[in-house]
Amino acid sequence: MSEIEVRDIGSFHVGGRLVRLEGMPARERVSTPGGPVYHDDQNGEIFVGQMYVQFVRLASPRATAPLLMWHGGGMTGACWESTPDGRPGWQTFFLRAGFDTYVCDAVERGRASWAPYPQMYPDAPFFRTARDAWEDTFRFGPSGSWHVNPELRRAYEGSRFPQAAFEAFLAQGVPRWSCNDALTQSAYDALIQRLDPGVILLAHSQGCNFALSAAQKAPERVRAVVVLEPSGAPDPAQVDAKNVASVPHLIVWGDNWQDNEFWRRSRPASEKWRDALAAAGCDVTQIDLPQRGISGNSHALMADTNSDQIAAIVLDWLTSRGLAR
Amino acid sequence: MSEIEVRDIGSFHVGGRLVRLEGMPARERVSTPGGPVYHDDQNGEIFVGQMYVQFVRLASPRATAPLLMWHGGGMTGACWESTPDGRPGWQTFFLRAGFDTYVCDAVERGRASWAPYPQMYPDAPFFRTARDAWEDTFRFGPSGSWHVNPELRRAYEGSRFPQAAFEAFLAQGVPRWSCNDALTQSAYDALIQRLDPGVILLAHSQGCNFALSAAQKAPERVRAVVVLEPSGAPDPAQVDAKNVASVPHLIVWGDNWQDNEFWRRSRPASEKWRDALAAAGCDVTQIDLPQRGISGNSHALMADTNSDQIAAIVLDWLTSRGLAR
Repeated sequence: MSEIEVRDIGSFHVGGRLVRLEGMPARERVSTPGGPVYHDDQNGEIFVGQMYVQFVRLASPRATAPLLMWHGGGMTGACWESTPDGRPGWQTFFLRAGFDTYVCDAVERGRASWAPYPQMYPDAPFFRTARDAWEDTFRFGPSGSWHVNPELRRAYEGSRFPQAAFEAFLAQGVPRWSCNDALTQSAYDALIQRLDPGVILLAHSQGCNFALSAAQKAPERVRAVVVLEPSGAPDPAQVDAKNVASVPHLIVWGDNWQDNEFWRRSRPASEKWRDALAAAGCDVTQIDLPQRGISGNSHALMADTNSDQIAAIVLDWLTSRGLAR
Repeated sequence: MSEIEVRDIGSFHVGGRLVRLEGMPARERVSTPGGPVYHDDQNGEIFVGQMYVQFVRLASPRATAPLLMWHGGGMTGACWESTPDGRPGWQTFFLRAGFDTYVCDAVERGRASWAPYPQMYPDAPFFRTARDAWEDTFRFGPSGSWHVNPELRRAYEGSRFPQAAFEAFLAQGVPRWSCNDALTQSAYDALIQRLDPGVILLAHSQGCNFALSAAQKAPERVRAVVVLEPSGAPDPAQVDAKNVASVPHLIVWGDNWQDNEFWRRSRPASEKWRDALAAAGCDVTQIDLPQRGISGNSHALMADTNSDQIAAIVLDWLTSRGLAR
C-alpha cells in the first residue's frame, strides 16, 4: 500500500465555556501511588461543553472539500480509525481517496470530556451493556441471541460483523447521556462556523440527526451530507426542508432492521425527513444495501467486514456529485 | 514545511474485560431529539479497564524505536497533538524527527472510556477547576494569581505558557479519579507486552510514575524512558532499581516548582528514584531547564511557547543514546 502524504496532524476543541461549580464537598486527593495528599477544592470555574476535533490534512488533497466524521451515540471518533478486528478504518479509506479528515468526539464523549452531574448535566449517563450492543443498538444478532459465552452467542445468519472482535468493538464505546442534545448540537454548529465554508458531513446513528440539523442551519457552508443508519432526523413539521434543498444528501441502511423494534421505531424519522427533502427539490438518495444485493450488514457499517465496500459506495456517490475525483 | 510520509494511521484498545453490572435502576432513554422512548436495562456485562492507543506509523521511520506518548492526570493524548494556541504538538515534532508515535489515553480518560462508580470504580472523579490548573497543577501563576477575568489574572513573570489560550488548554482536560492506579498500570503494562520489544516511553506528570514502573517491569522491552515533570515514581524501598539499570532515563523539569507546595512535596519521589537508578549504575540524566538558562516553563512543557525547544532537548538526548538519527 502506498504512503499517505500528510501536510499536518493535530487537534483542537470547539465550543464550551467556563461555568462556576458550587456546593461540591472538600476532598483529599492522592494523584499518584505514594504521592502527597492534596486538598482538592472542587468548587470553582470548570470548562464545560467543548467538543474535540482531530484533523489529518493531506499534502495534496484531491477531494474538493474536507470530510467531517461524526460518530454515533456511546461512541467516539475512534470508530472511524480502525475496525475492531484491526483493519484500516474509514478515516484511512477517505485519506487514501484524497480527503482531509476531521474526526470528532462529540460533547460528553472521549477527548471532548464530560461535566459533573447533576450539577452541570441534569441526569446520569447510560453505560451500554454487551447485550444491548449485540441485540439492539448494533443488530449483530436477533433478540435473545446474546450470551456471555461466545460459543453460545448467535449472530444473524450471514452477519458481516467480525464477531471474534466483539470485545474490541465494546472497548471502543463510552458512556452516553440523553440530556445533552442542545449542548452537542451547539458545538457541532460552532465547528462548521469555525472551518472554512465547504465541508462534507459524514455521520453515523445518533450523529446523523446532529449532521442533518447542522446542514439545514448552515447550508451555504455544507457541500454534502452522508448519514449512515440515522437514528433520528429533523421533524419537517418544525424545520423547513427547503433550507437545505441545495445540499445533496445520501442515506445508507444495513440489514435486519425490520427484525428489531428499536430500529423499526427509529427509522421512520429519517424517512419522513428524506421525503420532505425530496419534496423540496433536494438531491437525496437512499441506499438500502440489501436491495443492492449486499446483505448481512449491521448497524456498525464502518466496523463490518465489508466496510471498505460500503465506503466505496459513499465515495462513488461523492464523486458523482463532483466532490471527489 | 515538508510533508510527513505516513504508512498507516489507526487505533486500538488494550486491556479491559467484561464485568457484570448489577442493581442498576431500570431507565427510559431517548437517544436523539424526537426519537422513540427506549427501555434501557443497565444491568448486564459492560467492558471495563481498557486503554486507547492511536498510532501514526511512518513510511520510513528514521528512529530505531517507536515513541509511546503518555499524558498526565486529568489529560488525554490530545495534549501531544497540538498546543492550546494551535501550534504543532510534540506528536508532530517526533513524527518529523522520524519516530512512529503511539499516543495513548489512559484508563478512565478520553477514548479509553470510564466505568460507573461506585459499582466499578470505588470513588467519584475529580473535576479540575481553572484555579487549580492555573495556580497549582500547571504553575502558570503563583498562589492567589488566578482570576476569572483574564485582565485580573496574573502569570509568573516571564511565563512561557500561552496565556491567551488558557481556555483552550482547559478544554483539553478531562475528569480524573484517584482510585484507579492499579487498573491504569495494568493496561500500560499490557500495551508494552502487546507491541514488539523495543519502545521508548515519553510521559508527563502522573503518566511518569506509570512509565517508570512499566519500564522496571519490562526492561528488556523498553529502550529509554523520558519523564517530564514526574509527580511520582516507584519507591526504591519497595522496588529494586537494578531491575531497570540497563534502560537510560531522562527527567526534565520546568521552572517555579519551588514556589508551589504541591510540587515541593511531589518532586522528592522522583529524585529518590533517580538517585536509586544512579546508584544501580543506570544512565540517568536530570535536566532542570532553568539551570540551562531556559526560564519560565510551566508544568505543561509540551504546551509552552518554547515547546519545540524542549522537544529538541529530548531529541538530542535520544540521539545521543543511539535511538534517533
